[in-house]
Amino acid sequence: MGTRATSIWGWGYADKFPDTEARRALAEQVSPLLGGPSLEPREPAPLGALRLPSPRIAPPESLAALCSTDDADRAAHTYGKGYGDLVRGFHGDFSPAPDFVAHPRTEDDVRAVMDWCGDHCVALIPFGGGTSVVRGVEAAIGDGFQGAVSLDLRRLDRVLEVDPVSRAARIQAGATGPVLEAQLASHDLTLRHFPQSFEFSTLGGWIATRAGGHFATLYTHIDDLVQSTRMFTPRGLHETRRLPASGAGPSPDRLVLGSEGTLGVITEAWVRLQARPRFRASASVHFPDFASGTRAARELSQSGLHPSNCRLLDEQESFLNGVAGDGSSVLVLAFESADHPLHAWMERALALTASHGGECREGARYRSDEPGASPRSGGAADSWRSAFIEAPYLQNVMVSLGVIADTFETACTWDRFDALHAGILEAVRGALERVCGGGLVSCRFTHVYPDGPAPYYTFIGPARRGGELEQWLALKHAASEAVMAHGGTITHHHAVGRLHRPWYDRERPEPFALALRAVKDALDPQGILNPGVLVGP
Amino acid sequence: MGTRATSIWGWGYADKFPDTEARRALAEQVSPLLGGPSLEPREPAPLGALRLPSPRIAPPESLAALCSTDDADRAAHTYGKGYGDLVRGFHGDFSPAPDFVAHPRTEDDVRAVMDWCGDHCVALIPFGGGTSVVRGVEAAIGDGFQGAVSLDLRRLDRVLEVDPVSRAARIQAGATGPVLEAQLASHDLTLRHFPQSFEFSTLGGWIATRAGGHFATLYTHIDDLVQSTRMFTPRGLHETRRLPASGAGPSPDRLVLGSEGTLGVITEAWVRLQARPRFRASASVHFPDFASGTRAARELSQSGLHPSNCRLLDEQESFLNGVAGDGSSVLVLAFESADHPLHAWMERALALTASHGGECREGARYRSDEPGASPRSGGAADSWRSAFIEAPYLQNVMVSLGVIADTFETACTWDRFDALHAGILEAVRGALERVCGGGLVSCRFTHVYPDGPAPYYTFIGPARRGGELEQWLALKHAASEAVMAHGGTITHHHAVGRLHRPWYDRERPEPFALALRAVKDALDPQGILNPGVLVGP
Repeated sequence: MGTRATSIWGWGYADKFPDTEARRALAEQVSPLLGGPSLEPREPAPLGALRLPSPRIAPPESLAALCSTDDADRAAHTYGKGYGDLVRGFHGDFSPAPDFVAHPRTEDDVRAVMDWCGDHCVALIPFGGGTSVVRGVEAAIGDGFQGAVSLDLRRLDRVLEVDPVSRAARIQAGATGPVLEAQLASHDLTLRHFPQSFEFSTLGGWIATRAGGHFATLYTHIDDLVQSTRMFTPRGLHETRRLPASGAGPSPDRLVLGSEGTLGVITEAWVRLQARPRFRASASVHFPDFASGTRAARELSQSGLHPSNCRLLDEQESFLNGVAGDGSSVLVLAFESADHPLHAWMERALALTASHGGECREGARYRSDEPGASPRSGGAADSWRSAFIEAPYLQNVMVSLGVIADTFETACTWDRFDALHAGILEAVRGALERVCGGGLVSCRFTHVYPDGPAPYYTFIGPARRGGELEQWLALKHAASEAVMAHGGTITHHHAVGRLHRPWYDRERPEPFALALRAVKDALDPQGILNPGVLVGP
Repeated sequence: MGTRATSIWGWGYADKFPDTEARRALAEQVSPLLGGPSLEPREPAPLGALRLPSPRIAPPESLAALCSTDDADRAAHTYGKGYGDLVRGFHGDFSPAPDFVAHPRTEDDVRAVMDWCGDHCVALIPFGGGTSVVRGVEAAIGDGFQGAVSLDLRRLDRVLEVDPVSRAARIQAGATGPVLEAQLASHDLTLRHFPQSFEFSTLGGWIATRAGGHFATLYTHIDDLVQSTRMFTPRGLHETRRLPASGAGPSPDRLVLGSEGTLGVITEAWVRLQARPRFRASASVHFPDFASGTRAARELSQSGLHPSNCRLLDEQESFLNGVAGDGSSVLVLAFESADHPLHAWMERALALTASHGGECREGARYRSDEPGASPRSGGAADSWRSAFIEAPYLQNVMVSLGVIADTFETACTWDRFDALHAGILEAVRGALERVCGGGLVSCRFTHVYPDGPAPYYTFIGPARRGGELEQWLALKHAASEAVMAHGGTITHHHAVGRLHRPWYDRERPEPFALALRAVKDALDPQGILNPGVLVGP
């Protein structure tokens, strides 16, 4: 994490929060999109005015060296980075703060903290990058505990072993994206997992939440990149064998993936790496409308060409991102390879998009790095990625302007997409009208599978100052109901946490709830691990 | 299954068991490979001489119409098709026969049989194609039950729904490979899942055992082809949502995949289909030795080219399969696509294999079917597939000749392969020497992943008549110990069953055993489902 200060209430580095003038300038750009409301920037609660409850418990002598009872540290571990978190933090409300924060340096430390929590009926909340947008790291634990400890794993941040032959590495769970990639770079290898939270989120968090990377096809969900996992449970170490594949019973790793800190604390994983790409091809394809773009994206997903990027932006997103102002829907298309030039791939992809009315106005761009040269930066894919990584900072500004701005995502089969998309637009537009008096919804595909897309929605609307949380929850409710009604999943890559729990409970089969409850009772009999997430009250 | 009779003791159709003269001719080919033992064909026990225990229980009146108490039916449901099964069946020993066989026509029938078994403390063994090679369908249930029922699901064999847009179909679990492919063919779609047991095994069996298809890379394990599952448990219906992907908690389908009939009876699944391939490219590449072929296969697996076939045969397999007699190791390489010609793919693959000393003596072959034309048969890939499907018939002959012939498989990371391979060869050759006085071991890669291969071993040795089972178990033990000692999995695609259980128990993490036990107790509280497999004594 280095020494650059991160925001206690908002996304990312504190120094990236624009000053009042800059926010006022942004307000003038945003206001016309929302029908012209007056948007006056406000300032976040100063550090001295944060409201935290007094700790109910204190760290024992044996753990004191690992633990912090500092209010700033407790505040920084109170929330994730969802819209509701930002609003509460902006206003200085840190009421669900953990009683203290533990910063283990070793697996023994992890075990010691877990044992102490078990012995003292204290809830333990594993904490990686703290980038959850679903209240996944918040100590909203109910009344059954003496207190709550946030377990910050970021001191466990080393690449412990690299296997260049199998292209795999053993990495500690607390390593963030940049920290692990920096260690892999000297081996000319990359995990190539770039979720939007990449700068701050951790390997353990990705595994616990089944994170999706920014690649559109093939190996992009962390599920597919995990070769084995190491997780400490109250009933012992759950460590799986390093294997490329196995057919021996239900996959033990698949129980760890998505467990969201409820079954154990992930401390390490062997992950599958890739050689750094040397060849790149990219193109932007304009479609007359989202529907024709959707058909092209579907056919690409089923072509076996496996583009690394296949992001379809609807008319609204194309306009807001400045890639088209004429009502076009734009497909951002790219291929990457460490092995071969990509002309045959891109040419076939462009023939295919052309057959759906897609127009590649600027022609495809090809780049190749000479072997041995240091990887070049620049180019469309890189600038797209950089904009993608920067996007969450805008949400900080929106909160200060009194604008509700949030995203949600799902996945569904292709046959259901048209109805799901129409249903979501209707529900969210209706809710925005009702709750905010208007607003915008836009959509893009972040991932495309042969059997369906993962659409990602952004909605913004003017907030009533002081009523943001209530308004936002009403919008979130409308969106989630529409997703469920049209056959989507409540989350493709944002996890369940406490926010999505009611819809998750409807999505999963009832016997699976029994199964998960049984596993929880078997591995965490005192129920101290992240209470309220996935199972239990 | 049609009306063509299948063998009660051996693999496949009864009429494909060669007559005595033909078997004698085969004996003359096999004997020199084994050092010249006298191999005289014997005849299987006649139908009238099969030894089955008297049934302990009878079907109740309410289920009588679905159930068969016929000895031939009981015998046909006593075993799978592993070497040990064939030997016992050949000699007429059907002592673990189920008390009766149920042939449900509907899900209500399935539930009625399950309920009756639960009420009467009767073990229920789900039975698909009966092609298990790991004692997965054998009623070796211990003393805790009143009896055992084999639940044959093959009357549930319909494709119920086809979604051409998402390329998916809802298919009943009892459909065999040919039965489901025939129904999909009219939609110009294919599941493209071709395990060696394809002719006889069922969709439900593939899911329950995490079957591997014959494609070498990408979508080949049934795990990746399953979109949703429908499984009846004693505690209710476990039905998952049709989704291309999800990040909502641990995957419920992944609990069904590999459950081997212990948690419920799978009755249906939505599976991902593909358009029928129109373009094919194939080549045979000769390497001076297995080691250089291994390096080429590894690089291909990491290239992002995704060949449909990438089977590397060692010197022994190349010789036995008649593809090389000069000590070469041969890579059978192929690409398939429904979308695009494959020249760029194959050319790059051949450049890559050439850089490891691979020689493509005959040049690559390209084929393309005209759109609308009926799919052509013939060609290298098809003849390879046909030989692959025919191979298990040879095991019937070996049993009659008094030759132990069996296969086992695993998967490991590339960095461990050389040691694993050497360790396995040493262990199995040593055991063959000790137990059989000699014999052969050969190896091929059936699947290659970016992080490791799935090697598949065949061993043959002369048996001592009457001592086959004991000898075979000693060989199997040696092989399994070597697999485990060198970091492999006890099974990549043959499942655990009762045969691999001791090694499975060592492979899985201990907390996972607790978890699975807890799930079993939650979903099957009376423990009637396939007792002894995966969990419990």
